Parts: sequence; structure tokens; C-alpha cells
Amino acid sequence: MSEKTGTAQIGVVGMAVMGSNLARNFASKGFKTAIFNRSYAKTAAVLEAHPEAEFVGSESVEEFVDSLEKPRRIIMMVKAGPATDATIETLIPFLDQGDIVIDGGNTYFPDTRRREKMMAEKGFNFIGCGISGGEEGALKGPSMMPGGPKESYAHVGPILEKVSAHYDGEPCCTWIGTDGAGHFVKMVHNGIEYADMQFIGEAYDLLKAVGVSAAEAADIFAQWNTGDLDSYLIEITSEVLRQVDAETGKPLIDVIHDAAGMKGTGTWTVQEALNLGVPAAAIAESVFARAASSAADLRKAAQGALSGPDGTVQVDDKEAFIEDVRQALWSAKVIAYAQGLHLIKVAGQEYGWDIDVAACARIWRAGCIIRAKLLDRISNEYAAGNLETLLEAPSIAQGLSDANTSWRRVVAKATEAGVPIPGFASALSYYDLVRAERTNAAMTQGLRDFFGSHTYRRIDKEGTFHTNWSGDRTESEAVDAH
Amino acid sequence: MSEKTGTAQIGVVGMAVMGSNLARNFASKGFKTAIFNRSYAKTAAVLEAHPEAEFVGSESVEEFVDSLEKPRRIIMMVKAGPATDATIETLIPFLDQGDIVIDGGNTYFPDTRRREKMMAEKGFNFIGCGISGGEEGALKGPSMMPGGPKESYAHVGPILEKVSAHYDGEPCCTWIGTDGAGHFVKMVHNGIEYADMQFIGEAYDLLKAVGVSAAEAADIFAQWNTGDLDSYLIEITSEVLRQVDAETGKPLIDVIHDAAGMKGTGTWTVQEALNLGVPAAAIAESVFARAASSAADLRKAAQGALSGPDGTVQVDDKEAFIEDVRQALWSAKVIAYAQGLHLIKVAGQEYGWDIDVAACARIWRAGCIIRAKLLDRISNEYAAGNLETLLEAPSIAQGLSDANTSWRRVVAKATEAGVPIPGFASALSYYDLVRAERTNAAMTQGLRDFFGSHTYRRIDKEGTFHTNWSGDRTESEAVDAH
Repeated sequence: MSEKTGTAQIGVVGMAVMGSNLARNFASKGFKTAIFNRSYAKTAAVLEAHPEAEFVGSESVEEFVDSLEKPRRIIMMVKAGPATDATIETLIPFLDQGDIVIDGGNTYFPDTRRREKMMAEKGFNFIGCGISGGEEGALKGPSMMPGGPKESYAHVGPILEKVSAHYDGEPCCTWIGTDGAGHFVKMVHNGIEYADMQFIGEAYDLLKAVGVSAAEAADIFAQWNTGDLDSYLIEITSEVLRQVDAETGKPLIDVIHDAAGMKGTGTWTVQEALNLGVPAAAIAESVFARAASSAADLRKAAQGALSGPDGTVQVDDKEAFIEDVRQALWSAKVIAYAQGLHLIKVAGQEYGWDIDVAACARIWRAGCIIRAKLLDRISNEYAAGNLETLLEAPSIAQGLSDANTSWRRVVAKATEAGVPIPGFASALSYYDLVRAERTNAAMTQGLRDFFGSHTYRRIDKEGTFHTNWSGDRTESEAVDAH
Repeated sequence: MSEKTGTAQIGVVGMAVMGSNLARNFASKGFKTAIFNRSYAKTAAVLEAHPEAEFVGSESVEEFVDSLEKPRRIIMMVKAGPATDATIETLIPFLDQGDIVIDGGNTYFPDTRRREKMMAEKGFNFIGCGISGGEEGALKGPSMMPGGPKESYAHVGPILEKVSAHYDGEPCCTWIGTDGAGHFVKMVHNGIEYADMQFIGEAYDLLKAVGVSAAEAADIFAQWNTGDLDSYLIEITSEVLRQVDAETGKPLIDVIHDAAGMKGTGTWTVQEALNLGVPAAAIAESVFARAASSAADLRKAAQGALSGPDGTVQVDDKEAFIEDVRQALWSAKVIAYAQGLHLIKVAGQEYGWDIDVAACARIWRAGCIIRAKLLDRISNEYAAGNLETLLEAPSIAQGLSDANTSWRRVVAKATEAGVPIPGFASALSYYDLVRAERTNAAMTQGLRDFFGSHTYRRIDKEGTFHTNWSGDRTESEAVDAH
């Protein structure tokens, strides 16, 4: 540890684009900001490029730590994984008890849990802080999802809230919960983002299926962006569709190779939903759709072999169909929010994080990639009542009811036309599954009891039961389920 | 280690139902079988109940090991997890170099990889062997999926093959590959089993939706079981549907509580598909459908709030619709096989297991839960050519083409009627996604480049590119993708 006390209010480690932009954001809000990078050259470049900012640049970790007021606030903007562990190790020798280290990277939440525990044992405070908004968000105001010891939030919260995005004057940053809660919520944010983008892609495919051009689709999305679908992703969809490739003169969208990349957060979201037994299939379909798009050998083999309709949707009234697609897009989007927020709720209970779901929706209203007008309504609905699912919120249930016929028509038309709509169809199946009075799970239970003596429960009395399928087929109460 | 040599050819540890049944199976095929259980009472009970079997019962582990001929063959039939590790630890002190320990439990394959490595370092052979067929299979002939050192298979293979199920005289047991391959393939078998059961449940829901009674549905499934759908699960579906509850006089299926349980293997299959980036959404939907069925609070909240069609399918020709459902069920089933076998293929390459996909399908033809006539065709198709996907096999592609219109009609009808069909719809979306010339992934890539500078590839030249979306919107080649 170090006895020296500096005057910088916050320190940023890692001067790649996200780190330097966030440091500039702190400085622009009047915070004296210490900056550090493993190789000094990057720090020097940032200092030189931004004379306007009140930066304190250091060449060594010790000097960097010394330049901060106590208890120190240090935010790491380094690559998630081993680099984060390595950075923590270099900081530890110079930290004092009570200092606060924040991980602003895209960290997998179990790593945050492990680090928070390790740091707490050494007397340091560790905050895992999900940050969304990309490079521009880091500079101008991201959505921030910090999780960790609540008492340390009192010390860093005001600074983070000041540099975060704001919606109607409210900061898009709040304490999420203990240990890994912040990175968990950021992970789910990204899972919803996967679904949002998949649904937009399906909507565009359906517009193409009735003969809409890229330029016309750009107008349609721009129009949609003035209503219930008002959101950043819809807005930039219009921008992407309007872009013309300088080289070919074609719409850029037609020139981009159709294999989607991914970096793990969507995968983690689905894996965690599976761990917790939370149905989140619409998000899963979105992750798998990306995987399918990138499975070049699979696609090549299938394209040569499989036949089916050519993807043209026949409609009598094109405008009416486009409106149906809008309703389907809105409905599917609501389902993805419902699945993601339900996952957050269950995880909060399971891990003892004490998460306020309304607050999660509230800090997503600006700054982050999934920012949307709808999130204002969603956060209000959660704040108004202790919802088990977003779907039971009156205005949401009504909206889905109003859109229901359109949504079904779109899924049916796409199905008949051969347009792949894994997201729209899965979201609708979820809607029908959770509202069903009876599901086909009784059949599953009957079969499992038949082949594996797994037992079943009955609707009319307590206990678990087994039918002697291989013998006289009488039923007996099972002593213990197996 | 022990210097004594006994005469038993194989030893079974764990005298619960699966273990004692498998031991009886060995004995019935003429193998002198050593048996052991942590508490001797169970061993004694098995000895007493089965005087016909040539068993050697032991009270101590040492005595048990000593009773076996060398190199020893020991198969553990204990609960997966810590109990398996504990059993291995009790065996180790008495084993000799070259002895073979087989784990016949439902073990998660990474555990098998770890144990195989640990045992190899000590000079022992370890085989992770998936076993399917339930209690009856263990007794009369299961499907067996052993993975581990190939040279040790030469020593245990003939015994395992003799007690396994047989199809047309061929054993449903073969060497699957190195280390965790056997348990991986068993895991995927179970993932496919989840999908098979979900599809059966959806088919039954659709029959109900046109007014078919449980007894009539029993006849329909029995009829289906005489054709292309001929399989164990279809057969027992008919049995379950025919069962009348003695207490209420109603069909048992209507009395069983509709919340499906699960024990992990379906979840693992989907998580592993996500890890490997293999699209397997139809299996994922099946796992999530079980999760949804068991989410009592979610269902209760949604039931009270959501409206939609009542699940009645209107048809002019009921018989024709039932035939459509049969075609949809067959098609979806093929997709689940395709996804599972693709996952096995990719995992085999990724982990260096050298798996023969045709052999996997071959040993599933009898003994296991998903045994089906179709698997004979599938194994022949894989044996005939190096398939990237089952879907490119000529007879499969033709079958799917023939069933295509029916399948689409069923999904569209269910969608309009509000019958949840997550499996049928997902399988069809996969079909349309992998055969599509262009997917909507280009949109995803455009959006990702816009908000995160993730870059994209182009269809007309090599390299990765970035459009300066926040500036002059010119495109530049990216030095490295990030």
C-alpha cells in the first residue's frame, strides 16, 4: 500500500478507445482524472491529444495510485479475462484498505463474483460495472450497471451518475446489487440486444418478401421510429438501410457478408437461463440464428439439398402487411424484454442480489444499445407493482392483445413462404405457452415415468406417483421421486 | 494395488436398480460377475434374489478387486458427481497398472475428461460409458456408448457388446472415441430425446385441437408406429394415452400435472451447442418448454393477463390434418437428429475425438430411449458419405421435401389457433435458415459495425471493413477486427 495521497478524484486504467473516452468523459464533467496504461505511449498520446482535459498521467502503477485521493476510485477499462486479473494484481500492492476498484469491462459475472470475494478478503472494495453504449456512449454518457458492496457505491455513485447518460434528468446509473449483479444485468442487456437485432433482421426479411427495397425499408424503419418502436436500434437500422455502397452503387446491406459474429454475452445469457431454468428461448433463437449464419459448411450443404418456397410473401394489401410486421416486431421485442427481465428477477433471488428490476429498465432508457421509449413504460410498470413477468403489466398485456392477430398473421405467412423467422415464432410460442391452462408437459411426464420411473404429480392430490407400466399398470405413491 | 487374481470377468460397483440389472445382464450372458455395494446389505439382497446368476459378492473393496481376473474390468453404476469420484478413490489403492475402470453413469463429459486424464497419469484405463435404456435396458440390453483409450476397448468391448442390445444381429455398442466422447454422445442422445418428447407433446396437442380424444390419439400413435415414425417413444406414447386412471376414470394423461421435470442432460446439450457455436435451437426449445411448464408463478401471472385464440384448430378435413401432423412430427424429428448429430460431428473435431457419426446412429437403433426405425436409414446415409449435415442425405432431403407443405400448414394453423408449438416452429425455421441463400445476418453485422465498430466482411472481396458511421460514412479496410 501507499501512504501518499494525490488529488485526482478518479483513475482510469487502460487507454484503448473505451478507456480514453471514458476518461475524457470524467474530465469533461469537471473531475480531475488520473490515467494509466501498461505502455506509457498510449497515455502520452491521450495527454497530447486532449490538452483541454484535467488529466494526471503516470508512467508507473505506483505513481498512478499515488495521484488519487483516498479512498481511491480506480476504474479498469481493460480486456475481460486474464488481462483484468493481471491488472488487479498490479494494483493490489499499492492499494490501501477501503480503496475501490471498478471493473468496467464486459466481464462474465462469475469472474466478478470471484474477484469481489478475493478483494473483500484483502480489505478492498470491488465493483463490477457493466457499461453499455459503445465508444460514443463512453465519451458522451453510457448506461452504467455497477454491482458490489452497497456502501462503496455511496462513494463512487455520484461520480458515475454524473458521467452516465441521463433520461428526463435521471441518471442511467444506479446500484444494481451485490457482487456479480452489475455484470449479470449487463449480460442480460446484451442478450436482449441479440434478440432485438434478430427481430429487426426478420422484419426486414419480411419487408423484402413483399418487394420493399432497401431505401423504402429505410423510410419504413424511420417511420416506425416515431412510434411505439422508438429506439436506438430501429433508428440506426434506418441509417444502415439507407447507406449506399460507394464501390458498387448497391445498398450496403446487400454487399455485407451475411455471417454474424458474436463475442460471448448472448451465449452466456442463454447458458445462465438454462442454469436457472428460466425460459428464454427467443433470446436463444437469436444466438443460434447467428451461429447458423456463420456455419458456412452447414449452409452450403443444406442449400444444395433442401427445397421449399422461395421466400416470396403473397399479400393483397401490402401496406396492411407492413403494419402487421410492425406489430409483430413490437410484440416479439416485448417478449425478449419479458424473458430478460424475468431472468434478472430469478437470478436476483437465486444469488441473493436484491435487484430492483424497475431500476434496471430505468437505467436502460438512455445511453445503452437497447435504449428505447418502451423502456420508460416498462420501468414504470415494474415500479408500480411487484410483477412476476412483464407480460402481466396491464398496458403491456393490452398492447400484446391488440397486436396479437397481426403477429400471428405474420408468423403464418412467413411459415408458408419459407422466410426464416425463428425469433418471431419462438416469441409467439412463449406467449402461447405461458398463457396456456394446460401444457403438453403432462405427456413428457407420462413418458418419463414409463421409460425411467421418474414419477409424476397429479392435478388432484399431493404426492408423487408411479404407474407400474411394465406390470399390472396400477398406480402407487412413490416414496421418493427419482 | 493387489497381487491376487480372481476369476470374475467383470465387476459391477453399485447395486441400485441400474447396477444390479446390469450385473444380472452380464451373468445371464455367461460372464462370472463380481458385485459390490458400499453397504453390503444391498449386495446380499441381490445375491439372495438371484441364485441363478454366477455372482461373486464381496464385503470389502479389496475383496471385490481381488475377485477379478487381470487386467480387471470394473464398471461403476453409481450416482454421477461426487459419488463417482469417491468410488474411484476407494478403488485406486487396490488397482494394478492396466486395470480398466468404466463409469456407466450419466456423467457430464468434462468430468469424464478430467477423470480419464487423472487415471491415465496413474497408469489405469478409464472409460466413460453412456448407457441408455433405463432399468429394463440395463437388464435386457441397453445401448452403450463407451469412450476412452481405444486399446482398452479391445479388452472390454466384446463383453459390453454381448450384453448390449442388438439390431439385426449387430451390437448397439461400439467404441465412440477418446476421453469424454462416450458421455458426450450420450448427452446428445438425451438432448434429442428431449426434442422427440416435446414434438410428441405438440403433436398430441394438435390432435386434441381438432377434437381427438386420448383413446383416439392412442390409436393414431399406434398407427403412426407402423410407418416412418416407428420408434419406442411413439409406441409408449400410445400406451400412455390408452391408460385410464383407476381413481377418476379419466385418461391418465388428463390427470398428470403438466410440469415437466429434468435432470440436466438436455441443459448440458444446449449449453455445449452454445459453447461450440452449433445451431441446435429445436433442442433448446424443448428444454425451455420444460422450464416454462415448471415455472408456476410465471404461468399463473401470464394466464391471468394474456388473451388470444383458445387453441381450437378449425379444419375442413380432420383426417387430412392428422396426416399433416404426422408429417410435421416426422420432419421436426429429423431436424432434431440433424442438430444433435451435427453437434457430435463438430465436437468430435473440436475435441479431437475422431467420432464416427454413422456409428452413433447405428448403436441407437436398439436398446436406447430414442431407438427408431429411422435411425437405420440415418446410419446408412452417414456411412455412405461424409455428410456435413443429415439434411443433405438424399433420402432425408426427399422426405423433408415431401412433407414440407404439411409441416408448414401445421405450423401456420397452430400459430393462428394459439396452440404452442415451439419445437415444430423452431425446427422449420432451422430448415428455412440453413437453406436460405441470404440470411438476415447482414443486418446484424451492419448494426454491430454502426454501434460498436465490430466491422463486417463483404460478399465481393476479402478483408474486414468498417464504415465511418459517425463521420463521413466512407468505408475503410480494418487493420484488425475488434
